[in-house]
Amino acid sequence: MRVRNKPWAKDKLSSYPQYVIENPADHKGKWNQVFGNDNPIHIEVGTGKGRFITEMAKANPTINYIGIELFDSVIVSALDRIIEAEIPNIKLLNVNAVNLREYFAKSDVDRLYLNFSDPWPKKRHEKRRLTYKTFLHLYEDILVDGGEIHFKTDNRGLFEYSLRSFSEYGLLLTFVSLDLHNSDFEGNIMTEYEEKFSLMGQPIYRSEVKFQNQK
Amino acid sequence: MRVRNKPWAKDKLSSYPQYVIENPADHKGKWNQVFGNDNPIHIEVGTGKGRFITEMAKANPTINYIGIELFDSVIVSALDRIIEAEIPNIKLLNVNAVNLREYFAKSDVDRLYLNFSDPWPKKRHEKRRLTYKTFLHLYEDILVDGGEIHFKTDNRGLFEYSLRSFSEYGLLLTFVSLDLHNSDFEGNIMTEYEEKFSLMGQPIYRSEVKFQNQK
Repeated sequence: MRVRNKPWAKDKLSSYPQYVIENPADHKGKWNQVFGNDNPIHIEVGTGKGRFITEMAKANPTINYIGIELFDSVIVSALDRIIEAEIPNIKLLNVNAVNLREYFAKSDVDRLYLNFSDPWPKKRHEKRRLTYKTFLHLYEDILVDGGEIHFKTDNRGLFEYSLRSFSEYGLLLTFVSLDLHNSDFEGNIMTEYEEKFSLMGQPIYRSEVKFQNQK
Repeated sequence: MRVRNKPWAKDKLSSYPQYVIENPADHKGKWNQVFGNDNPIHIEVGTGKGRFITEMAKANPTINYIGIELFDSVIVSALDRIIEAEIPNIKLLNVNAVNLREYFAKSDVDRLYLNFSDPWPKKRHEKRRLTYKTFLHLYEDILVDGGEIHFKTDNRGLFEYSLRSFSEYGLLLTFVSLDLHNSDFEGNIMTEYEEKFSLMGQPIYRSEVKFQNQK
């Protein structure tokens, strides 16, 4: 994604501590206190401008959502959506996903979403792909046993790579669609990118994988 | 596939015992004697008119191929190809794949091909799909340890189903292409169907999966 620099973004994010959690490591192992209830927690790694996670939060009020995004100039758009709609069951983290273990303990997270992640197509950048084995290990360390990763992309190469990476890691593939918008899948919430690329005729790929207890 | 009845097919097949093996159970555990060498054996389940396997046999003279096809009116076309090209490293079996264990012992087969198998799209016909778990079990029982299944289809539903079925069985996905003809895969040999459907703009899906020793 092209990131337009917004020098004011950092200040705006810190003006809304009720939505943008400033010191997430303080809440490790006790995120239920942040939300004030014991509802399941679903996180999105690479939340971008936040359309997916804010719509999910509106549609599923008994689930708590956390959107994680590295770029302050991008996540500030997600913040705008939350302010406008006054959504209580969503928080944002302006942090790097490589440090997820600092912010979440084992079983803090019930489900993890990856939507239209950067494909990093060059082989030498494989380790940066959010479905590379070190990231899968990271997710396993913060998810509940049997926790799921739900992954969507329009990038064929990234999807092919990810199916192989999931298999090699021993994840169980429980759902796969190779053309989501021409399938019988119900309740899909589109991201900003998804709408744009889908209109261009690009099939959208989607999978659900599950960490297996026997691992 | 629409099967045109050819009343003379059975007779023709039995006229070429050097190509069409009449009592395959007699060779269980000793197929190397049939070929007269110890080269690896690759089989195709659902050989159809035989373009794939005959071209593979021509391109790979140090591998032995066995094409398996239930319909005599179809496999007779594969026989014609073999007669015409006098291909030494290929045999045909006009049998039902559900009985594979009668014809092959464990490790008789080094690799198994499935190309454009019948999708059996109705849920109640799931057990007939050649990637259903009972068939995977059958394949495991005749393949070498670490043996591979190479699978191609134009049918999205069947491919999605098969990816899930492979995962559930514990097979390792070592290759996947969601648009084979627009990928960098080299040496693809097209089946009759593949050429036809590909010309219609349908993407061809292809995967390689491997039985894992730790199973």
